[in-house]
Amino acid sequence: MFFHKKELQFHAKPEKSDPVFAKQLQEIIGGQFGEMSVAMQYLFQGFNTRGNEKYKDLIMDTGTEELGHVEMIATMVARLLDGAPINEQEKAAKDPVIGAIMGGMNPHHAIVSGLGATPENSAGVPWSAGYIIASGNLMADMRANLNAESQGRLQVARLYELTEDRGVKDMLSFLLARDTMHQNQWMAALQELEEKEGGKIAPTTVPDEWEAMDFSHKLYNFSEGEDSARGAWATGNAPDGHEFQYESSPVGYGGKPELKPAPPYVHSTPPLDK
Amino acid sequence: MFFHKKELQFHAKPEKSDPVFAKQLQEIIGGQFGEMSVAMQYLFQGFNTRGNEKYKDLIMDTGTEELGHVEMIATMVARLLDGAPINEQEKAAKDPVIGAIMGGMNPHHAIVSGLGATPENSAGVPWSAGYIIASGNLMADMRANLNAESQGRLQVARLYELTEDRGVKDMLSFLLARDTMHQNQWMAALQELEEKEGGKIAPTTVPDEWEAMDFSHKLYNFSEGEDSARGAWATGNAPDGHEFQYESSPVGYGGKPELKPAPPYVHSTPPLDK
Amino acid sequence: MFFHKKELQFHAKPEKSDPVFAKQLQEIIGGQFGEMSVAMQYLFQGFNTRGNEKYKDLIMDTGTEELGHVEMIATMVARLLDGAPINEQEKAAKDPVIGAIMGGMNPHHAIVSGLGATPENSAGVPWSAGYIIASGNLMADMRANLNAESQGRLQVARLYELTEDRGVKDMLSFLLARDTMHQNQWMAALQELEEKEGGKIAPTTVPDEWEAMDFSHKLYNFSEGEDSARGAWATGNAPDGHEFQYESSPVGYGGKPELKPAPPYVHSTPPLDK
Amino acid sequence: MFFHKKELQFHAKPEKSDPVFAKQLQEIIGGQFGEMSVAMQYLFQGFNTRGNEKYKDLIMDTGTEELGHVEMIATMVARLLDGAPINEQEKAAKDPVIGAIMGGMNPHHAIVSGLGATPENSAGVPWSAGYIIASGNLMADMRANLNAESQGRLQVARLYELTEDRGVKDMLSFLLARDTMHQNQWMAALQELEEKEGGKIAPTTVPDEWEAMDFSHKLYNFSEGEDSARGAWATGNAPDGHEFQYESSPVGYGGKPELKPAPPYVHSTPPLDK
Amino acid sequence: MFFHKKELQFHAKPEKSDPVFAKQLQEIIGGQFGEMSVAMQYLFQGFNTRGNEKYKDLIMDTGTEELGHVEMIATMVARLLDGAPINEQEKAAKDPVIGAIMGGMNPHHAIVSGLGATPENSAGVPWSAGYIIASGNLMADMRANLNAESQGRLQVARLYELTEDRGVKDMLSFLLARDTMHQNQWMAALQELEEKEGGKIAPTTVPDEWEAMDFSHKLYNFSEGEDSARGAWATGNAPDGHEFQYESSPVGYGGKPELKPAPPYVHSTPPLDK
Amino acid sequence: MFFHKKELQFHAKPEKSDPVFAKQLQEIIGGQFGEMSVAMQYLFQGFNTRGNEKYKDLIMDTGTEELGHVEMIATMVARLLDGAPINEQEKAAKDPVIGAIMGGMNPHHAIVSGLGATPENSAGVPWSAGYIIASGNLMADMRANLNAESQGRLQVARLYELTEDRGVKDMLSFLLARDTMHQNQWMAALQELEEKEGGKIAPTTVPDEWEAMDFSHKLYNFSEGEDSARGAWATGNAPDGHEFQYESSPVGYGGKPELKPAPPYVHSTPPLDK
Repeated sequence: MFFHKKELQFHAKPEKSDPVFAKQLQEIIGGQFGEMSVAMQYLFQGFNTRGNEKYKDLIMDTGTEELGHVEMIATMVARLLDGAPINEQEKAAKDPVIGAIMGGMNPHHAIVSGLGATPENSAGVPWSAGYIIASGNLMADMRANLNAESQGRLQVARLYELTEDRGVKDMLSFLLARDTMHQNQWMAALQELEEKEGGKIAPTTVPDEWEAMDFSHKLYNFSEGEDSARGAWATGNAPDGHEFQYESSPVGYGGKPELKPAPPYVHSTPPLDK
Repeated sequence: MFFHKKELQFHAKPEKSDPVFAKQLQEIIGGQFGEMSVAMQYLFQGFNTRGNEKYKDLIMDTGTEELGHVEMIATMVARLLDGAPINEQEKAAKDPVIGAIMGGMNPHHAIVSGLGATPENSAGVPWSAGYIIASGNLMADMRANLNAESQGRLQVARLYELTEDRGVKDMLSFLLARDTMHQNQWMAALQELEEKEGGKIAPTTVPDEWEAMDFSHKLYNFSEGEDSARGAWATGNAPDGHEFQYESSPVGYGGKPELKPAPPYVHSTPPLDK
Repeated sequence: MFFHKKELQFHAKPEKSDPVFAKQLQEIIGGQFGEMSVAMQYLFQGFNTRGNEKYKDLIMDTGTEELGHVEMIATMVARLLDGAPINEQEKAAKDPVIGAIMGGMNPHHAIVSGLGATPENSAGVPWSAGYIIASGNLMADMRANLNAESQGRLQVARLYELTEDRGVKDMLSFLLARDTMHQNQWMAALQELEEKEGGKIAPTTVPDEWEAMDFSHKLYNFSEGEDSARGAWATGNAPDGHEFQYESSPVGYGGKPELKPAPPYVHSTPPLDK
Repeated sequence: MFFHKKELQFHAKPEKSDPVFAKQLQEIIGGQFGEMSVAMQYLFQGFNTRGNEKYKDLIMDTGTEELGHVEMIATMVARLLDGAPINEQEKAAKDPVIGAIMGGMNPHHAIVSGLGATPENSAGVPWSAGYIIASGNLMADMRANLNAESQGRLQVARLYELTEDRGVKDMLSFLLARDTMHQNQWMAALQELEEKEGGKIAPTTVPDEWEAMDFSHKLYNFSEGEDSARGAWATGNAPDGHEFQYESSPVGYGGKPELKPAPPYVHSTPPLDK
Repeated sequence: MFFHKKELQFHAKPEKSDPVFAKQLQEIIGGQFGEMSVAMQYLFQGFNTRGNEKYKDLIMDTGTEELGHVEMIATMVARLLDGAPINEQEKAAKDPVIGAIMGGMNPHHAIVSGLGATPENSAGVPWSAGYIIASGNLMADMRANLNAESQGRLQVARLYELTEDRGVKDMLSFLLARDTMHQNQWMAALQELEEKEGGKIAPTTVPDEWEAMDFSHKLYNFSEGEDSARGAWATGNAPDGHEFQYESSPVGYGGKPELKPAPPYVHSTPPLDK
Repeated sequence: MFFHKKELQFHAKPEKSDPVFAKQLQEIIGGQFGEMSVAMQYLFQGFNTRGNEKYKDLIMDTGTEELGHVEMIATMVARLLDGAPINEQEKAAKDPVIGAIMGGMNPHHAIVSGLGATPENSAGVPWSAGYIIASGNLMADMRANLNAESQGRLQVARLYELTEDRGVKDMLSFLLARDTMHQNQWMAALQELEEKEGGKIAPTTVPDEWEAMDFSHKLYNFSEGEDSARGAWATGNAPDGHEFQYESSPVGYGGKPELKPAPPYVHSTPPLDK
């Protein structure tokens, strides 16, 4: 069950209107690694956690926080749209700066949401639940989460470069900090899981006899050039304790596949090639 | 530039037809973490890498390998569909096993592809490039890659449980092994990057003064209950060397947001509420 | 800012496992009119409301409740998947009931989420933010909300028919009730808005001179047959107070459109047709 | 069966070229509430209506009309693109007004459609059938239709504000009028249905004993603050005749959910948390 | 402007209920090459045709016919769903044939549309306008149309194999015939266009000096093995009159790409690799 | 199995930065007819070909080449983004040319990919596997391929018009040439298939008695006006050797459809209309 408090977690007040930046800022609301993604990813992970209450609680703490981030950034978008020059065609015809704003803003901000945030990314593509993962395996999911917070913080840093507005930068500073925390916490949880499960290869529950172990530590050189042979991933100890191997000229073990001719009832091309 | 060899990287021969499993196996072709995803994710990362040739080569080696995995699994799907009872309605009406197969298979295998693999997941949803990421930041992207291989190996392990077919299990054994290697290599690369860049919080290039550091190490208890306070993420050293803090009753710093009334030209609701 | 309490709003305990119904139940989590849709629709409406705090608070009350409904139904799905026979191939080959379950369940429940709910509809299609609307115009949005709760309650009623499980039916009873309340409240809000704004045609702010009033009350008979002429929409008073008119043989006012030939620089077909 | 007449229902002649407005106008062709949506929504509702010929005929009249609106607006888009400066790079480099047009237009109008309309919204996202609904329940669907025409008319009004072109405004005047009619007709039909079915809560066919009636009229205060308690939805008679109730501090009836540990065959995290 | 007549173009009466086939039949309503696709593809082509009225009229004739095909097949789907055993759980538990039907049908037919057709394909994925094309170039578009009718007729033939129902087969016979006509007509139009435009390479308007003619007739052997060298596409006259050439070992002309290091303001990985 | 060589197939060096053109160029990477589409379409066709090795090899040659085209164009996009003025807000505020660039570029190039190509079209919509087809029927698929290369070459020609950059034009010249070859080769293959299969109506395997031959050669005049009667498709020999017929006033053969009332258990509208 969820409850809402009216206060924003952090302030969201731009110095001035900026409809083009409002479009760009949508990326961290409804983009692949925006706040809708992390909120929904964590909540579904929490809902689906079986046992392991300590991890579940951490996940629910964070997912719930991210819902508040959607709210905070949506508020910022609405304020960046205050005063958007959408009905000043006469001015726009003469003033190319206004023309560029009208061409450069997200049309949905004018036509669909009436100067409000939309559940879309910076290109205007609606958010899709296809972005998120909740697998039931915490080690795998901690890696998904660490990735999400890394990509998210990277995008916040880039947005920081895209604006001069002090008020916007303040909110982005807060988001940079929260993404730092979240990277830290998922790394800590991941490390604990790897220790408790006694392994780093997810899932740790696969019996050795299921795996074709001859192929578990070989780097195949499928892209010409030997640059990759110089890395820590080609020789020496792998993170799971085995030895890396490097294979310069990979060969195929599967032979050339030849499929049976299609049966007549699928109306594919009959055998023509003799 | 790419070249194709006719040999499969590993054999892909099921013992017998199994159209329902063919549907399930589609997950690792065209699902969120299927081979199309890892192939395209790595190739776009490689194409976009600026400098850092060693990493680029590793990424291209692996992306190119994954293209071959699409081929291998697609071949398996085609063979699992050999002999699908799609035109045996009369039998199906009497034999519920055949009826269950016809209801349980992916209709596209019968109607659209003519007993071939489709670029779709196990529910029949087409693959979307919205699944992948190539950010230009290698640390962030190594985490994306480690996640993809962890989720992918987990799905292969689950598919291994879903079949008794020795031929299918053989191919899945190979895939388990390759996913082990790929988790290993991305972890090794990640560790090297963290060392060279001198930090674990991506991106490492954000100046301290951009970040609201007071908020960078606090766990906020947004989900009631104190279970999460017991974790390594609530007290002690964070992976970035700072101290974790735990805040049991989070407060808002942003005040209650009140948006300006909408201007008349957006035809939203005028102020009615006094 | 949001907070989470561990209690579910209502209990979610099925009597027994039912993986096929778990698939069907996904419709009201991640379908077009599932709980993700109403939660996100209301929250974005709330975030974007400008002034009109009374309406905003109602919207936020309800959006926040719906987040809890996602949790409640996700819990039910997880429990319906307890004991899913996903690794009992040998039994399935002999027992067509098990075969039908394995063919009839959502493969993502086995392969992707590990017996947990997914953010998808009953066909396995991921939820899309393209389903929702937050226009900034409360009259329009109350109609969207009334529709969503009407479609939602209809789907719950149909799901009630699809199961015999007493525990599932209990939870659906609660959802039927909440959808009744939400239909009631949006109707009450809508009526109040129509009165305060002094009109029923949204948006009420369009000046008469913008509208081609000759066409504002005519029913055009574009589908042969005069059945529609017998309705309350063809004669008598329209809800906005004007008189309905019926036009049996609609004519075109726009003439036959002839577009200019394409300029050479778009490489379309040159004029060939004389 | 459908027939086409060459005349447009209304004229669609802009005064002059305007590629940026052509992009914006796409919203009412291929957006969530554009003419493709209402056409397809009504046609599928009509196709699926079982009995109730009078309603079916009204629905088919309107769906068929909307097909003609797609045509009319598509014609307008094509004419707004006449003379788009897409091959005037040299000018654009010097003239920022032309630069803003080239950056602000939908690239598909230049590259994909060759100066024609596309089945997309104003952000260039293709129309999706996920936008529409045809439930078989006329009361629910009339509400969907009333919403669609309310959102649609709101968007037309906003587009009216975005242009100074007299020819475009003429066409929009006609669309405002038709959306007025369609709101009127769906309201009239809805009122008739509510009377005939003897109730306003859709679907009206749910027996009382299916519904947990204790929860059918309560407003839960899930968002702090008591603003919503002041509304017509918190006290007094609800539209269905029962009494509204307000609950200031909602409690959970469902207890804290604890899911069973995952069975080994899904390779989720084993119980680690003691 | 469009008009609707109540008669179906052809009868659509199955002998008996078949919910699983109803799901499969959705492919030719809302699939990639279903009737929604051809209807919308042709209508947008027609709306956008500039000049060339003879072709435009043919395109509009056909697009309008296809709208009627959606109606006809939707009617068939609704009738195949009459009597679907969706509320017979008790029977289903005992009777695996009923169980297989309930697991094998499209859940949307039960929950969303109430025994009506949906705008979806056979896997339940909503139709997307991303399937269609209207480029403004008639030669290119005739090829799109010829393809659509070829894929469509192939799918109809496959569906014909999937049913024993005489009534369904009758309707499919009609569709096979119409797809024959449409293949014929688009081929005839294509041939005429190739003659009138004096070339077969679309678009025919590209000046020779724009094209790197050395590369216009070479088959590169990028997939090992020389099987493709035996074809009509490797030697002899190409359809455009030039000579085909075969290159057994393709080389790269572009050198190894090395991108500049990323500028600091994108926070990508700095140069690490020396 | 695939292998990668570092050389690009052709050079990809623009004369100068052009972020707006970089956005437009994305169309031929991740658009409906971009290189991802042709690569994946051909590869899946190749993987699924049953027998007919000569065709399979041709298809694999071409699909593998197209992967290299993705790489080549992605490289061009990265270079067009070198020096994008994304952190020059102060300049942009004063200089409308810079403002237009920032509003006109794809925000993902700045925020998501860090100056690299994305798997998206020119509007920023991610590539979807819903664009491609691999049917198992070579005649149908050759038509899909011929269409793809025709649309693709048309788009390249239009992009050629959109830039003055000599380096970009060079690469486009190469692509024009390859698309010429691919149109040629698919036409040659198609012609051979039509000859070998002894027919032009795909699939050629449908027995005459399945088809309602009375309807196989009639052009129905569903769009008023007789322009289409003047074409080669209305009279004379059809490509399949039969005679075309023209029907000026099409009639319906299917009668008016009346669906049975909905059963109570779907909670649709009961019969109200008497």
